[in-house]
Amino acid sequence: MNQQVTQTRIPAALQQQKRKRTAEFQRTCRLDTDTPQGVVHVVGTTLKTNLSRSAAMKQCRTLRVDFGKTSSAVYVVGSELNVNLGRSAPPSSKFFSVKCTPNVEYGIKPSPPETSHLSPIPLNGNSVLLICMKRASQHENDSKLSVRYYGGDKEVLGHAVLHLTALEISLDVDADRDGVVEKNNPNKDSWTWGPNGHGAIVLVNCDSERRYWKKLDAEQKYISKESDLKDMSLMVLRTKGPAKLPKGYKLTMHISQSDAESVRIFRTKSTGADAMSNIFQNYATRDYPLVLSSEVLSQEVPYLGGEAKMKFYVEGLRFPDKDFNGLVSINLSLLEPISKCFPETPIFTDKVMFKVAPWIMTPNTLKPVEVYVCSTKDNYTFLKGMRNLVSNSGYKLKICHEYLNRGDRWMQDELEFGYIDSPHHWFPVVLDSPRDGKLEDFPYEELLGPDFGYVTRVAERKDVSTMDSFGNLEVSPPVTVNGKNYPLGRIIIGVAFPTATKGRNMTKVVQDFLWAQEVQEPIALYSDWLVVGHVDEFMTFVPAPDRKGFRLLLASPDAGFKLFRDLQKDGHGQAKLFDGLEDEEPISVDDIVNDDKFHNQNIYVQGCIDWNRDVLKRELGLEDEDIIDLPILFKLVDDRGVYRAVAYYPDMVNMIVLGKNLGIPKPFGPRVNGRCVLEAEMCSLMEGLGLRCTFIDNFASYHKLLGEVHCGSNVIREPYDFKWWNLEM
Amino acid sequence: MNQQVTQTRIPAALQQQKRKRTAEFQRTCRLDTDTPQGVVHVVGTTLKTNLSRSAAMKQCRTLRVDFGKTSSAVYVVGSELNVNLGRSAPPSSKFFSVKCTPNVEYGIKPSPPETSHLSPIPLNGNSVLLICMKRASQHENDSKLSVRYYGGDKEVLGHAVLHLTALEISLDVDADRDGVVEKNNPNKDSWTWGPNGHGAIVLVNCDSERRYWKKLDAEQKYISKESDLKDMSLMVLRTKGPAKLPKGYKLTMHISQSDAESVRIFRTKSTGADAMSNIFQNYATRDYPLVLSSEVLSQEVPYLGGEAKMKFYVEGLRFPDKDFNGLVSINLSLLEPISKCFPETPIFTDKVMFKVAPWIMTPNTLKPVEVYVCSTKDNYTFLKGMRNLVSNSGYKLKICHEYLNRGDRWMQDELEFGYIDSPHHWFPVVLDSPRDGKLEDFPYEELLGPDFGYVTRVAERKDVSTMDSFGNLEVSPPVTVNGKNYPLGRIIIGVAFPTATKGRNMTKVVQDFLWAQEVQEPIALYSDWLVVGHVDEFMTFVPAPDRKGFRLLLASPDAGFKLFRDLQKDGHGQAKLFDGLEDEEPISVDDIVNDDKFHNQNIYVQGCIDWNRDVLKRELGLEDEDIIDLPILFKLVDDRGVYRAVAYYPDMVNMIVLGKNLGIPKPFGPRVNGRCVLEAEMCSLMEGLGLRCTFIDNFASYHKLLGEVHCGSNVIREPYDFKWWNLEM
Repeated sequence: MNQQVTQTRIPAALQQQKRKRTAEFQRTCRLDTDTPQGVVHVVGTTLKTNLSRSAAMKQCRTLRVDFGKTSSAVYVVGSELNVNLGRSAPPSSKFFSVKCTPNVEYGIKPSPPETSHLSPIPLNGNSVLLICMKRASQHENDSKLSVRYYGGDKEVLGHAVLHLTALEISLDVDADRDGVVEKNNPNKDSWTWGPNGHGAIVLVNCDSERRYWKKLDAEQKYISKESDLKDMSLMVLRTKGPAKLPKGYKLTMHISQSDAESVRIFRTKSTGADAMSNIFQNYATRDYPLVLSSEVLSQEVPYLGGEAKMKFYVEGLRFPDKDFNGLVSINLSLLEPISKCFPETPIFTDKVMFKVAPWIMTPNTLKPVEVYVCSTKDNYTFLKGMRNLVSNSGYKLKICHEYLNRGDRWMQDELEFGYIDSPHHWFPVVLDSPRDGKLEDFPYEELLGPDFGYVTRVAERKDVSTMDSFGNLEVSPPVTVNGKNYPLGRIIIGVAFPTATKGRNMTKVVQDFLWAQEVQEPIALYSDWLVVGHVDEFMTFVPAPDRKGFRLLLASPDAGFKLFRDLQKDGHGQAKLFDGLEDEEPISVDDIVNDDKFHNQNIYVQGCIDWNRDVLKRELGLEDEDIIDLPILFKLVDDRGVYRAVAYYPDMVNMIVLGKNLGIPKPFGPRVNGRCVLEAEMCSLMEGLGLRCTFIDNFASYHKLLGEVHCGSNVIREPYDFKWWNLEM
Repeated sequence: MNQQVTQTRIPAALQQQKRKRTAEFQRTCRLDTDTPQGVVHVVGTTLKTNLSRSAAMKQCRTLRVDFGKTSSAVYVVGSELNVNLGRSAPPSSKFFSVKCTPNVEYGIKPSPPETSHLSPIPLNGNSVLLICMKRASQHENDSKLSVRYYGGDKEVLGHAVLHLTALEISLDVDADRDGVVEKNNPNKDSWTWGPNGHGAIVLVNCDSERRYWKKLDAEQKYISKESDLKDMSLMVLRTKGPAKLPKGYKLTMHISQSDAESVRIFRTKSTGADAMSNIFQNYATRDYPLVLSSEVLSQEVPYLGGEAKMKFYVEGLRFPDKDFNGLVSINLSLLEPISKCFPETPIFTDKVMFKVAPWIMTPNTLKPVEVYVCSTKDNYTFLKGMRNLVSNSGYKLKICHEYLNRGDRWMQDELEFGYIDSPHHWFPVVLDSPRDGKLEDFPYEELLGPDFGYVTRVAERKDVSTMDSFGNLEVSPPVTVNGKNYPLGRIIIGVAFPTATKGRNMTKVVQDFLWAQEVQEPIALYSDWLVVGHVDEFMTFVPAPDRKGFRLLLASPDAGFKLFRDLQKDGHGQAKLFDGLEDEEPISVDDIVNDDKFHNQNIYVQGCIDWNRDVLKRELGLEDEDIIDLPILFKLVDDRGVYRAVAYYPDMVNMIVLGKNLGIPKPFGPRVNGRCVLEAEMCSLMEGLGLRCTFIDNFASYHKLLGEVHCGSNVIREPYDFKWWNLEM
């Protein structure tokens, strides 16, 4: 039902006004030519229902349309233009009518009385015209709407014409977490946990594409290699509309100051079709201009014209921490020009939200990939043992040589292996301990590399103690505690009693970091009773075929004394511990069992371990059947005025777990029929779980230095299959 | 069924062991006299069911009981002692039996076969004895339990006796938020929002009990006056047990380092019955020793003996902020001694959680209490007008005199009134702006006092701009937005466009503070288009009897021009604005209406206000019917290279709202039949809402200095009836 509209003559006053108008304060909806416009009338009812339904998300914009003028407006599909007709009607207007071209839909509030859609509608003080458009324009101003004002006798008083240009704009991310950037996900601007949750994910770009002259990628403000792009999250700006934006309009990407401290955004320089092609083409890196950073919070981005996609790459800069929950928002706005001396007006804004992926630790029950140990002047026997164990288990042994470790053999203590994960990419990340022994350069110099990330926390020297060594940082296998699931397990650290007025603790910056990762809620144990003070001196986890899929192994002096007592009872009181070890005085079972002072020391140690046992049972939801007591004795030594414990013979719980193979410190226990009873007991306890024990001699090179196999090694493991964002928080 | 037990003879070896034992490593569960014990047998089944049910909250503690010994243990009612019988049984024990006194209940895991409860039970490797007690002991060791071990032929092999002392310990707070500290609330250790939520609340003690030589109470580490106690949250330690704790046992209160930065804890020195008497008795303040602070994270607290309560007072030190979610935990532990050179072991810990109350703003719709204005050399007329308005409205006018304001008349800009609230107490709190004009001393010197709090945020001078004046900080009345309730309204601030590369913004420390309060989620408007840049230059809220209970008033150049055009049309084109004002050139309606440049300036301003109108409609869930456009015109001036707006005549929206009375800047509009048409229009718009308009002449003393009535005044209002902790978050 197309029809011509007779053009109302504009009152002389207005003509005059028009001529007088200075450029300087012209609004965009400005007075243009008054040539006749072909317009079509559409009843707005359908539209009205749409409105009420989607009012929640719809962006509404107030627009002015003055009688006697032809204005132009840019519209973004999905939004709504509101024109208050009363405001700018000719004086004494009583009625109005509206016509528009097919791509335009309108509604009227309050809804007019049901009359023929062609007869004028009564105008009241706050009659509002609601305008939507169905699809993007092909050409500037290719859609039109006109309003005609009438007086009391339906005589025409004025006429306003609106030229419309519709755009489709969508800033898109992988909000449904399937590794693909979908189009305009309705939940893209928020973030929720769980399998039914939504929200995009970004990785801290903490690896280094370069092997030499290394630098964390996140520390440089440019993309040095194509390969770096895969560490970032793809963000796509989809636009559809005329070849060019109307004069003066702009697309701008922007971010808040605090969010800009956590992410950086690059884009492809390429345009149109190119932008849709594979990102791994050989663009020169200068083809990825920096868009947003903490120095640039807002920047124009090109409008490509027609139907186009532009790729952006979001790079995470910092991990969640005490003052950062990991959530970051990025905005894309369409700016309308006014004139110089005035800021452009954002007339439409699209927003997406990312969460920075947490750092995740890997428990003993995950499949090993590589084993790391140090080579020193004096640990040949140990190395040999480890080499056999690791190769027999079918894994790779990596050796850190003397020139790098400078005699520091405590591979467990300098670093902790973990990883970061997202739907599009993951890589291992080493957490470097503030311990900073002679191994301090190893994590950065040797481990950091392409798809191998690095993170650390810097503490003041005075705040760093032995408690900050990562033999004191472990993680449990997945557990369920009073109905709450921890499918990634729980981090375990050792500290002093919370009630202790003095005592050694893990430094605050590291603890804050661990708690802020959220997904492996930490448990603080009591390890300050040990001279070295690490949780790995009295506990570990091994895989099990039954129950919860693992067992907690605890050092147990009670079990130790029971074993030695039974030996004595069975007539082996003269069997000797440390037999045949050089520089070590052998001692008989009788001497051990009959030494009350020593026994009481071990009763004390058992009490310390039992305290932790109670905490672990409560915090991991364990039963006694989930725990195995290993026969291990301790002795107390004067540690600067306080008595603390060290293992009396090699501390078998301080083992390395490689699938079903356990590398256990060789205890050198008393022999019966040529067999070490401690090894025998250990084997019989592990056999039931289908685990093989390999005993490694670390007596001279580790045990005497107050560490064992576990302290002297470290294992990179495969990540969980479970995705952290599927946690129910 | 009381009965005597024949005492098993302790093997010589053990007798010997006992004598040899050195004091140093004696455990508390130590070998005491072996005198016969009257013990009663109780079948443990009832207990077992209890256990499984309440396993979640129950604190379980592993305890050792060695055969041939009499041990002592302290038990806390509600917890559970676990004894692994296998561990310390005599060699080749095959059966055991248990007897105990009436106050003791026990269970056995795994549950024994159903036999006569008197016949021995098979002992397997991990038989565990679960011990509970029903009520507190009256005397040390007044309850007993004994375990007898048997061999394969049921011959007695050994006998262990446990002496038990039961305590009731409960650290209590007002977790149900009724203003009263209840006993041992099961939810006291966590915090949740909502009417069905739980968790205690603490106020920042940011007032000052002293009027002279003032200091924030939170800034001093002692209680200077009894009256200060009511600003703190009461915490009660309830204990029941023997007159004294067994030798060496202690009660200790402790807190984490980071939580200690947010609260401080005092206690009453008084004991027993006294502690239960009214806290406002005239104790000398030295009767409130400091227990915990950032310097002391753990301290012993007295055990009063018998059935007793000890009162503690928790003092909030800091408001929620970017790095602090307001949650704080306080712990109370029972410590078991070991011997010197060893830390005491916490064998039971009770925990409570507090949330620091947020700072809450009060909208125009709340009942006023006092009105503040400045007296200056030149504002007599204004003061007179205000005095009449305020007294007619029945409120108190407080005047800040010249010696203090030093000519700074902008009472609105230097400070914002709000309050903090808890179930036990509330008081107003002034937020002092970093603006720091000549009024800067007023909030601290004049307002801070008993039950009048003070808080500020310190920004670097360079980061402070006109946007930090609190004419740019307002709050809406309660709203519901897409189903989400904001029963305390939403904070409104003004900033530059988020897309602007340069522009003026409210300083980050203040924004962080406002967002961190959580309960009035802020909205950022665009106010940088104004020279002064404050949201109160174009918007305010007034109470309304209908709809949402309020209307949003917006300055509207369109409404202004419409009004002037109609005047012209009705033949009043020669009526004059500013007529009769000295030093002010009158200007006719015709001149205004016909000035296109001026009109275009106002079209631009209308656009800026419409942008905010759209945001406010979306963020406050408003419809056009909730908004009233006020006829106000602006002009643009060159503000260091950019054009910004100022009100052309007194900006009527910049009003003071006192219940149904509005104090409005007298606009000096054109008169028709002697009546100012702007006043007339204003009155007719407000009449419908039952509001009375009083026009106050602030032309010379405020308007000419780019402010009006609202900028020059401030109002303390009553707090909400709605309690912030009942918010559904």
